[in-house]
Amino acid sequence: MATFVHPSRQDITLEGVLAALADPNRLRIIKGLLNEKGGMSCTEAAPCDMAKSTLSNHFRVLREAGLIQTTKKGVEHQNSVREADINARFPGLLKTILKHAQD
Amino acid sequence: MATFVHPSRQDITLEGVLAALADPNRLRIIKGLLNEKGGMSCTEAAPCDMAKSTLSNHFRVLREAGLIQTTKKGVEHQNSVREADINARFPGLLKTILKHAQD
Repeated sequence: MATFVHPSRQDITLEGVLAALADPNRLRIIKGLLNEKGGMSCTEAAPCDMAKSTLSNHFRVLREAGLIQTTKKGVEHQNSVREADINARFPGLLKTILKHAQD
Repeated sequence: MATFVHPSRQDITLEGVLAALADPNRLRIIKGLLNEKGGMSCTEAAPCDMAKSTLSNHFRVLREAGLIQTTKKGVEHQNSVREADINARFPGLLKTILKHAQD
């Protein structure tokens, strides 16, 4: 069983966040998660035609950059954006980037 | 003799800009160029202990992302940040990212 590693707030880096968001699918996932405040499973948040392994990889990149929190809910993994942490580390950054991301 | 390819304003992508800036050395180069409005040669803008090939690669990544303009001045290449283009494409983005970049 995989365990999930999340960086603590102070270990979130600007470079890591920018690299994680430098991908249209990952931007789309973050937008999807923010629209679903309760958290979403991987499959719910996913752009529809993506292989499960590709999707898992995107979630891993986002998680390791400190952008999302993954928790186990039964057999599914629920993901949510770590808005408070990101906004505390880099005020205004996430909002500005998402404003320019295409839907 | 190398010729430099610069994307036109409308071809500058958010993902490309984020990927190019997802590196502390490239962030430092952009900050250095912005402090020297007249444009800087590669060596002037460079973090001091970097191999020339590494440095050239960083400038290439920044140029291909549309972040800098490179022009030949005699035997040197002068680089400047395409502030007007970036700000027109993604208002507020560069400023917000640079605000959070460490010196």
